[in-house]
Amino acid sequence: MAFDVSAISGTGGSSLPDFGARYRLDCDTGRSALRLALRQSRRRSNSARIWLPDYICPSVPAACRAEDFAVMYFPDRPGQVLLDQPPQVASGDTVLYVHYFGRVNTAFSAWLQETNASRDWILIEDAVQAAYSQGIGLLGDYVITSLRKWWPAPDGAVLCSTTVLDGTPPTAADEQFVGMRTVAKLLRGGNAPADEFLSIIESAEALLEQAPPRSISWMSRYLLNRCDPIPMTQARRSNWLSLQSAIGAPLLAHAGIFPLFSALEPGEVPLAFPIRVADGRDKLRGYLAERRIYCPIHWALLDTVTSSGNSRALSAELLSLPIDQRYDVNDMHRIVSALLEYCQ
Amino acid sequence: MAFDVSAISGTGGSSLPDFGARYRLDCDTGRSALRLALRQSRRRSNSARIWLPDYICPSVPAACRAEDFAVMYFPDRPGQVLLDQPPQVASGDTVLYVHYFGRVNTAFSAWLQETNASRDWILIEDAVQAAYSQGIGLLGDYVITSLRKWWPAPDGAVLCSTTVLDGTPPTAADEQFVGMRTVAKLLRGGNAPADEFLSIIESAEALLEQAPPRSISWMSRYLLNRCDPIPMTQARRSNWLSLQSAIGAPLLAHAGIFPLFSALEPGEVPLAFPIRVADGRDKLRGYLAERRIYCPIHWALLDTVTSSGNSRALSAELLSLPIDQRYDVNDMHRIVSALLEYCQ
Repeated sequence: MAFDVSAISGTGGSSLPDFGARYRLDCDTGRSALRLALRQSRRRSNSARIWLPDYICPSVPAACRAEDFAVMYFPDRPGQVLLDQPPQVASGDTVLYVHYFGRVNTAFSAWLQETNASRDWILIEDAVQAAYSQGIGLLGDYVITSLRKWWPAPDGAVLCSTTVLDGTPPTAADEQFVGMRTVAKLLRGGNAPADEFLSIIESAEALLEQAPPRSISWMSRYLLNRCDPIPMTQARRSNWLSLQSAIGAPLLAHAGIFPLFSALEPGEVPLAFPIRVADGRDKLRGYLAERRIYCPIHWALLDTVTSSGNSRALSAELLSLPIDQRYDVNDMHRIVSALLEYCQ
Repeated sequence: MAFDVSAISGTGGSSLPDFGARYRLDCDTGRSALRLALRQSRRRSNSARIWLPDYICPSVPAACRAEDFAVMYFPDRPGQVLLDQPPQVASGDTVLYVHYFGRVNTAFSAWLQETNASRDWILIEDAVQAAYSQGIGLLGDYVITSLRKWWPAPDGAVLCSTTVLDGTPPTAADEQFVGMRTVAKLLRGGNAPADEFLSIIESAEALLEQAPPRSISWMSRYLLNRCDPIPMTQARRSNWLSLQSAIGAPLLAHAGIFPLFSALEPGEVPLAFPIRVADGRDKLRGYLAERRIYCPIHWALLDTVTSSGNSRALSAELLSLPIDQRYDVNDMHRIVSALLEYCQ
C-alpha cells in the first residue's frame, strides 16, 4: 500500500489491535510475532513440536524452524467447511491455525470447541489476514497479526496473550529495513516505475530472513496510532460486497472463475477477495497486472510441505483481488470489467 | 525542507560532496562529523584545545566539549573582511573556521595563506553552510558538512580528510531519529499544522544531545544518491540574485534593513539570504512567519561565549531569508513584497 500523507494526519484512534487479550507486545513483522509466541511456548512446555495447516505462507514454517521447532502438518485451507483430519496433537505441543482472508476459520474452531476444555497443548491463532475481524482470539493462548499489509506503515505486528509475556524484549528496530519500506511506499505513491520500488521491497524482505524479532519502529507506531480502523473496515467490506455481487456472473463461471467464498459475516473485515481460476490463473494475473490491477497469490506452497491434494489444487488456482481502503466502488467496477473482458 | 517524492525519483548523480578530498566518511549530522574529526585530531596530537570563531552555532562548542576539548574563541563572523585578531594557536591545537552562508570565508583564508606553509596545528573547515560552494576544503586537514538542511533527507553529513580516516566506525543509524525526521518532513509536505511537525522535529533534535556519532541512514544515502546538485545550485543562486536586486531598495534601507552581503561569487551556492535588521528583528520575523515565510536565525549565540561586541551585535540583527530550491522567482517577489509592506 502506498504512503498517503493524509492518512497520517488523522487522529482517529489507534489501529493496533489487541483481540481483547490482556497482554500485547508490539513488534515488526508477523514472523517476529510468531517467533516471540514460540519462545513463550517453549517457556511453558518441553515440546518443541508445532502443527501447522498445510495451506500456509512459507514464512511460517521458516519462522518455526528458526526457533528450533519440528514442524508437522495437518490439512486445512481457506474455505474448508469441516476439518477432515485434525492435528494429532500430543500433550505440550503447539498448534497454529489461520483465519484466512479475514474470515473466521469456522472449520478449525468447530473441531476446537469439542476439545478445548481439556486441552493440554498450546494454541496460536494466526490473524495476519484477519487483524480486524470480530471473533478472533477467543480460543487461542496467543494471537499474532501483522499490520503492514493493512496500513501504509513500513512495519508493525502484534503478539497478544492471555498470560503475561516475559523473556528478553525484542531487538531495536532496524533503520535500513524501515527506510527501505518507507522509501518504497513513497516511490509507489509517487507513481515511480514499478521496477524501482519492487526491487527495494524485495531487498527489504531479504533482510528479514536473517533478522531477529525486532520491536515495532518509531515510525510505524506513530503512523498506526493515527490510523482509524472504522473507515478502513467500511471500505474493505463495501468493496468486497461490490465484487461479490458481480463475480458470480455466468460469463465468469463459464470461464472457470469463481469466488472462493459465497458470503462475508457481519463482523469480518476482509484482506482481499480471493477467486478460484480453474485454468490459467497466472495468465489472468498477468492480464490484470498489465491493467495495473496487482493481485497477490496467497500462497504458493512450499514443495517441501507434504500438502494434501486439495490444498495443492487450491494454491494453484487462487488469486487475491485487491479490495483495500485505497479503492472504491469505481475501482471494483474496473476490476470486474477487466475480468469480463478477459473472458470474452 | 519538506519531503518531495519527485526529488527522490531522480537519477541525477550523487549529492554527497567530497570537496576534492581523498577520504570521506558519511555520518548522520554535522555535529557527528565534527566529533569524528576531533577524534582524528586527538590521534594526531596531544593537544585537546580547539579554537572556534565567536560567531558560531551553539552545537559546535557542545560537540567539542562532548569530545573533551577545551574551547577557546577568536573573533570572526559572517561578512568579516579581515581577521582583526587571529587565534593564538599553539603547536598541536585544532582550529575550526566557518564558511558562513555558502560564501568562502575570505578573511580567515587570507590570514591562513600567510601561515599555512609552516602550520603545526590542525585545521577543520566547517562547510555546513557551504556544502556546494567551490573553493572549500583547499586549506584544511578536515572538512565537515551536513546535508539535511540542503535536501529532503532525514539526516546525512560528511567528514572529508586529506589523510586516511581510522579508528572505530560510527554507531548504526537510529530508526527513531530517522523516523521522526521523515514523518516531520512528510507532515510538513502534506500541509499538516505546524505544531505537529515542529514538536516532532524538536523531539528528534533532543535525541541528538545524548547520541554518539552515527552512520548515515540507509534512507538518506538512498535519497542523497538520487538528488542532483545542478538544478539545486541554479535555483539557490537565482533566488539569491533575485533578492539581492530588490533588497537594496531605499524604503528598506530607510527602515534599517540591509543585505549582509553585497555580492555572491560565481562558484558560491548560498544557504540563505541573510539580512541585517537594525531594529526589531524578532518583530519582523514574526510578521513574516504570519505570512508563512519562515526565517531561521543563524545563530543566537550562547551567553557563555565571550563574544566580541561586533559578533553579539550581528547575532541580534541577522535574519536568514529562505532561497532554497523549493522556491522560485515568484516566491522571492512575495518575500520582497512582504518586506516592503512591513516597512510602509
